[in-house]
Parts: sequence; C-alpha cells; structure tokens
Amino acid sequence: MINAVVGIDIGGTNSPFGFVDKDGNIIAKGCIRTNEYEKFDDYLNALISEIKKLNREYNQIKIIGYGIGAPNGNYYKGTVENAPNLKWKGKIEFAKLMKDKTGIKAYLTNDANAAAIGEKVFGNAKDISDFIVITLGTGLGSGIFCGGKLLYGSTGFAGELGHTIVKENGRLCGCRRYGCLETYASASGIVRTVIERLGSKEYDSTLKKYREDEITSKLIHEAAAQGDKLALDAFEYTGEILGKALANAAAFSSPEAIFLFGGLANAGTYIFEPTIRHMEINMLNNFKGTVKVLPSGLSENTAAILGAAALCWNEVK
Amino acid sequence: MINAVVGIDIGGTNSPFGFVDKDGNIIAKGCIRTNEYEKFDDYLNALISEIKKLNREYNQIKIIGYGIGAPNGNYYKGTVENAPNLKWKGKIEFAKLMKDKTGIKAYLTNDANAAAIGEKVFGNAKDISDFIVITLGTGLGSGIFCGGKLLYGSTGFAGELGHTIVKENGRLCGCRRYGCLETYASASGIVRTVIERLGSKEYDSTLKKYREDEITSKLIHEAAAQGDKLALDAFEYTGEILGKALANAAAFSSPEAIFLFGGLANAGTYIFEPTIRHMEINMLNNFKGTVKVLPSGLSENTAAILGAAALCWNEVK
Repeated sequence: MINAVVGIDIGGTNSPFGFVDKDGNIIAKGCIRTNEYEKFDDYLNALISEIKKLNREYNQIKIIGYGIGAPNGNYYKGTVENAPNLKWKGKIEFAKLMKDKTGIKAYLTNDANAAAIGEKVFGNAKDISDFIVITLGTGLGSGIFCGGKLLYGSTGFAGELGHTIVKENGRLCGCRRYGCLETYASASGIVRTVIERLGSKEYDSTLKKYREDEITSKLIHEAAAQGDKLALDAFEYTGEILGKALANAAAFSSPEAIFLFGGLANAGTYIFEPTIRHMEINMLNNFKGTVKVLPSGLSENTAAILGAAALCWNEVK
Repeated sequence: MINAVVGIDIGGTNSPFGFVDKDGNIIAKGCIRTNEYEKFDDYLNALISEIKKLNREYNQIKIIGYGIGAPNGNYYKGTVENAPNLKWKGKIEFAKLMKDKTGIKAYLTNDANAAAIGEKVFGNAKDISDFIVITLGTGLGSGIFCGGKLLYGSTGFAGELGHTIVKENGRLCGCRRYGCLETYASASGIVRTVIERLGSKEYDSTLKKYREDEITSKLIHEAAAQGDKLALDAFEYTGEILGKALANAAAFSSPEAIFLFGGLANAGTYIFEPTIRHMEINMLNNFKGTVKVLPSGLSENTAAILGAAALCWNEVK
C-alpha cells in the first residue's frame, strides 16, 4: 500500500481532486461539478462517492487525509464562509463533515493559502521561510509565509492583499468597496484597464476589433507580444500598481521572494518587468534589492490540487 | 542576588537604561548622553562604565544579559545600520561589541519592535498572539506579532508600516520618498497638517497665534480639547489616514489588537475615535469588528527600557 492524501480544489464550477503521495506525485485524478449541487450535503456525498470510486480503481492507495482548498476557507474552523462564487450560503462546516462521513482527518484553507503551502512543500519555496504567493486570476489571492509558517492571524483570514485599498475612490470591487488592489492587478483588472482605454484615439490597437466582453488577459498578452501599444501600456499600468503594492508588502513582512502565479502571471516578462521595476522604485532603502519576484514552481493545472494536498501532508506527517 | 537584565534605549539625544527583573520591575535607572560621543567606541565604553557604576551601587543585582532598542536596529545581526539620528554612520556591530567588552550576552532590535515585545511580556498583549504596536512619535514605528512571534522577515527589518506609501505624490518623507504613512500619522505629521491649514480663512483658531515652529502635537491636543475646529479637523484627517492604513494592515496580518503608543496616542479619544471609525468604514467584511484598537499598557517613561529588557528576557529565560 502507498500512503496518499486527497487534494481537493473547490472552484465555482468544478472540484478537481487528486491522490497525492509524499513527494508531490499525483497518482490519480478525478473531478465533480461544484455548481450542480444546490445542497451542500448532496455535493459532499457525490464528492466522497467519486473519491471512493477512484480509490477502488487505484486500490494500492491508502488515503490518510483530505486537504481542501476553498474560496473564503477558514483554516482554524475548517469552514467555508459566504463564498461569493458558491451556491451554499452561510457557514459550511466542510472539514468536520468530511471527517464525520469518512472517518479520515480533513484540513481546509483558502485557495491562495493552499497555493502558498504548495509552493513551500512541492514548489520553488522549499528552502525559503519568508515569502508571499500572489495568484493573479479573476481576483488577486495571496498566501503569506513568515518565519516558515503560513500567516493566518487572529481570524484565520490573514493574507487578503487583493483587498488592500490602493486607490482612493478607485474601481468598484466585488467586495463592494472601492480601489482594492485586485480591481487593477489581476486578469480581470488588466481587462478593465484595456476596456477603459479602448475608446481612446491615442491608440491604433488590434484589440479594438473585439467586443468588450471578448477581451481577456490572454488576448492582451498576445497583443503585447505583437508590440500593441495599448496592450503594453495596460501591462505597464498594472505593473506600476502591483509593484507599488509589493513595495508596501515588503515594508510589512520583508519577504525573501514573492511568487506570481495564475492567468496574468503567464504573461511572463510583460507583467514581471514593470512590476519589479516599480517595486524597486518605490521600495524603502532598507529593502531595495532584497525581494526576488519569481514565477511559481507549480504548473497551473496541478497547483491547486498539490497545494491542498500539501496542506494535508503538513498536518499528518 | 537578584537576576536582572539591562534594558537600554538608544535615542538620538539620550540613552536611558535600567536594571529590570523578570516581573518587569525597574530596580535602578541610569542614563548617558548619546550625542556627546563622536566615536561609537567612546560611547560604548562610557555606557558600560555607567552601568558598572550603577551595579556597584545596587550590588545585589546580577546582570545576566543586555537588551538594546535602537533606531534602524537589526535583530538578526545585532547591528545599528545608518540610523539618521545617530552620529555613527555605517553598520555598528553593537550587540557583538557589547558582549565582547562585558562577557555577557547582548540582544538588539529596533525601538518599535522593542515596544511590541515590551507590550507582549509586560504590557496589555500578554495573552494575545497576533497584534501590532504602533508608536506615534516623531515618526511612526511598528512592531508586528504573528502567531506569538515578532515578525522580522528575511532582512530583520520587517514591520516598517510608517514607510508604506499611502498617498500618491504625497508629503516628502525623511526617507526621501513621497506619501509615507508617517508623514501624516505621527506627532510631526499632525503638526504638518495643522501648519498646512493655518493660513486658511475657514478657521478662527487659537493655533494661529503660534509661529509654525512652535506648533506641537500637545498644543493641537489642548486646542482640540477646547473645541478648536482646526485642531479637531486635523485629528479627523490624521485618523482617516491612519484608520485606512490599519484596515489594510488587518487584511495583511489579521491582528486581534492594534496598540497605539507615544506622543500622539496621548491625545486619547481625539485620535482613537476617528482612527477606529475610519478603520471600520474601510475594513473588508471578514475583518469588520475583529480588531481592537487599544492604548498601550506601558507608561511612556518606562516603555522603551522595559521593551529592550523584555527582548533580553525572551532570549535568556
């Protein structure tokens, strides 16, 4: 028998999961649809049933724990609380119910924290004690390691850099406040930046042939690679805001490295270069040159499962 | 014999020190002038000689360690690095030289970190694992506890909230950047706010009878207590900027409490009320109502010595 944990990534649409061994190998993978289940209990039964089915197929695997990454996940309580993209409202006792139904220990944290733990256990942060993982997807998530430990704070919700306010009277955020970092520095943030500028006569951009709802960060990246000035300016603006936020984050926790991950990070140098430049320009002297901004060591397809699994391995080891 | 540590507070003008027992009692106190010594070596010899003299007087005390709080102090290296208000430039190996000359262990950290450790060991944070101490003096210093430990980060300089940039193209800071929090939220920050408004016809203020260089945060506090609108507006503005910064800090490390300390904090409700109000208005939902903003449990006269002593007791215990 091989000991493995189940890493589960709760997304708004899908819940992919995988059996992950101690070295970070994904031995088998499965998936159920998250949004097909109005009631959480039905969802959980379907998830467990699918996991058991896969375990019968891979019957050399002994499951010794569950690791769950979820939006608005609270590590201390094992709960998912009022996640905007999930159908189940209120406080869901996910980890406790999982354990009750299976008899196996279950641990839960939010998805960006899971990404950070994945980076620490299986990725590029193995030897780093102080670092931040920033996921640049639809929103901006962050997981912060300080002195070798993930920062949870008194509530279990620490590390919400996406919801630090960086512009007075700035863009409206999904959290109903204005000027949050994630309204600028995220895949959807750069799309908003481009859309704001589509009408400008300053630009003769290939992006103008698309409808607003067709613009994606991938299209903007492709346009930038062709030298499109609107796209390049949008990366410059995004990098300026993100770079300034990272300079402020450095003054807070002085990380050795900041890892950028997810949709927008795939734009590579187009986002890394302006981000690093503006971070250094805005950095307090003591911190200049001390923070590496690096790509994640995990691939986008497997990072969420590995991160959730890493959370569990950290607990059961 | 009673075991005690020596807590030493290196200020730009004076270096007060005290013999502190395990319960935080200051058994004896002394002081030398910091700025009388051009060469660090002369300063250190004078300091040690003064400590020895006091120890002969209080000869029931056995000194088992030195704790030093210093501007730009680096805990990891025991150094003071390029402190703007001290005469000794470059990197001073303070802790190592202290130990070499006395044969007794010495620990050093920056002054705001020492205040935070003092709050944890002897003040109002004894039972709190996640908190921030903010010192509102000439500048804004901060010491951040996460999970029961002081946050040092990869460089040893973490916790520089005073130098997070909160206003684009804002006030010029001593660090040569613009818009740092401490240019607004500090004793000298509120003085700048008042001076900017002294010429305004909107106000019929008693503060207008002072020259600019006579205005102090204490005068502003006294005017506010008399209902002076200029003074009250200055507190409102300072509290707005500080409150927003605390809301962002909560999104970072989710502290259970934030302690305000030093000159400006002595204004009590005049600074606490607007700060708390604006913090709550600007707080992400998850954190609303979770952060207490409290006065320090240490008195201003003894906090720096107790903080430096607490650093040492934490190490030698």
